[in-house]
Amino acid sequence: MPTFAKAYIASSATAPLQPGTIERREPGEFEVQIAIKFVGICHSDIHTARGDWASVNYPVVVGHEIAGVVEAVGARVTRHAVGDRVGVGCFVDSCRDCANCRDGEEQYCLAGATSTYNSVGRDGLPTVGGYSTSIVVDEDYVLRIPDGIPLDAAAPLLCAGITMYSPLRTWDAGPGKRVAIIGMGGLGHMGVMIAAAMGAEVTVLSQSLKKQEDALRLGAEHYYATSDPSTFEILRGHFDLIINTVSADIDVDEYLSLLALDGTMVLVGLPSKPLTQRAWSLVSFRRSIAGSKMGGIRQTQEMLKFCAAHGLGAEVEVIPASKINDAYERVLASDVRYRFVIDADTF
Amino acid sequence: MPTFAKAYIASSATAPLQPGTIERREPGEFEVQIAIKFVGICHSDIHTARGDWASVNYPVVVGHEIAGVVEAVGARVTRHAVGDRVGVGCFVDSCRDCANCRDGEEQYCLAGATSTYNSVGRDGLPTVGGYSTSIVVDEDYVLRIPDGIPLDAAAPLLCAGITMYSPLRTWDAGPGKRVAIIGMGGLGHMGVMIAAAMGAEVTVLSQSLKKQEDALRLGAEHYYATSDPSTFEILRGHFDLIINTVSADIDVDEYLSLLALDGTMVLVGLPSKPLTQRAWSLVSFRRSIAGSKMGGIRQTQEMLKFCAAHGLGAEVEVIPASKINDAYERVLASDVRYRFVIDADTF
Repeated sequence: MPTFAKAYIASSATAPLQPGTIERREPGEFEVQIAIKFVGICHSDIHTARGDWASVNYPVVVGHEIAGVVEAVGARVTRHAVGDRVGVGCFVDSCRDCANCRDGEEQYCLAGATSTYNSVGRDGLPTVGGYSTSIVVDEDYVLRIPDGIPLDAAAPLLCAGITMYSPLRTWDAGPGKRVAIIGMGGLGHMGVMIAAAMGAEVTVLSQSLKKQEDALRLGAEHYYATSDPSTFEILRGHFDLIINTVSADIDVDEYLSLLALDGTMVLVGLPSKPLTQRAWSLVSFRRSIAGSKMGGIRQTQEMLKFCAAHGLGAEVEVIPASKINDAYERVLASDVRYRFVIDADTF
Repeated sequence: MPTFAKAYIASSATAPLQPGTIERREPGEFEVQIAIKFVGICHSDIHTARGDWASVNYPVVVGHEIAGVVEAVGARVTRHAVGDRVGVGCFVDSCRDCANCRDGEEQYCLAGATSTYNSVGRDGLPTVGGYSTSIVVDEDYVLRIPDGIPLDAAAPLLCAGITMYSPLRTWDAGPGKRVAIIGMGGLGHMGVMIAAAMGAEVTVLSQSLKKQEDALRLGAEHYYATSDPSTFEILRGHFDLIINTVSADIDVDEYLSLLALDGTMVLVGLPSKPLTQRAWSLVSFRRSIAGSKMGGIRQTQEMLKFCAAHGLGAEVEVIPASKINDAYERVLASDVRYRFVIDADTF
């Protein structure tokens, strides 16, 4: 039997999110029903709720940084049991059959992974996200959250954490590597922690020096303000890897000049305008610009294990659901250190 | 004692190249004097002779695809002997001390490698290129040309050959890899041969189908005209590696869409305008755009050995020096299959 859940709902691009009730299906034989405990506020939630990106099917319930506890399982579920601490990230299904799915890179599913919200599930119904008291998800797309990580600090790992972990692994962050993180926000602060735990020498490039103390505490060795032009002189040719977490338009050539031979700048945000660079910025030192999107299920599980082993979790400000709309304004003003997480008991 | 050599000289950006005489220094104790036999015509020669790029110090003698025979050696030369078949490429010196030089990547020397022409050598004098009957070069920057490769077919390997070989090695072209070469010119035709010899499945993307037969003969398995929009539908998500040899402005997003997960498009030419792409083109399948510049001395020697082992050499049209100016016009009109090589006996 379907159950009812409390949720916060965006009914249009301009309406504030409001409390309401949604229906969740009875878990299928391979599905898990999760009592949500915490859900992070990701910038994508705001873009979707406000219709900034592609078409949105209102009413919409967003939220894809979900941490909770299993409260029911389908008859043939083997990977999770009632009472397990679990998480759900940006997608809840994929074709499982394409080359990318078979490689464990479901986020790049050639048929298109099913997003946790504002997508259409296998049942033909819209997917409904995690600003809610429960969710039902196929067991293969549910992550185990190790005991060492509190659920509120775990929630943002499911999007922000894996979005940083995956490129750091792909481009071999580790001892002897100089890694720069552009932007010290929800993504950036996770990147600092993870890259430092991997053994890389981490530098934060942020507009101002305001968050310097936090960055050093989280594991960065250096911190430079990009508003100071001398930063680009001092750090010329310095980095092996730059991860750009900011969606603001940047002078790509200027940042590429900070890369050493074979260095790569990876975009994990989506600036609204196209990026432009001179060919010479790439050719002169065999540099690359790349992009990266979340991580697959296997790697997300690996990331959670890694974070538990290194005592890492997001730095969060837990809020009641009634503060979501205020929190959105504060996210847009970069006034959060470093991730809002909604206490699902307050929906 | 310095010697005199015959040469073809550009006296200004607008004057045709004309025959003349230049002075070559006596080889220093670590230097080699080479009797040039053949020298290739590279598009860069034309850009330099005509002042298209950075400032040119006229009069200039261009040419950096040099093949010849050692005719004299300095007292302490150990790597080459009189009578050896040798080559010289795009640079004749570098600092030897920076991280990149120490890694055998002299083309990325942090102090700037000394170009074979229109640069300034260690002696403070301008470097004078290979459109000439002889040249004097430090032994460490002179390549051995294996017996299996005729000198006329070897000359273009020193720039076009290594410019293609290096990125094909860096990005692991080989069995199971789908490689596209954009442009079927001096660089492109070498890329087809080398990538095929490495075991990759090679596709040529060229404006028209005119060179299809040649490409298949040289080892390509597929050939598509980029003037046909269906090419971009058919090949969507297909390639692991695309090497772009053309300097014309392209729709970067369109070409990125041809890359599979983790695919890379490498620029080896220098389009005059900046390149622009949407972040999504990179993020959606973890794609990269990169650039690559020639190869180091060690890798150039490896490339020559590889070409000899696989029976590869450039497809050349040998011309007398008196035809250089005509040849330039034909290069600009893409009317060459696939590299002009000047017979140095005719200078």
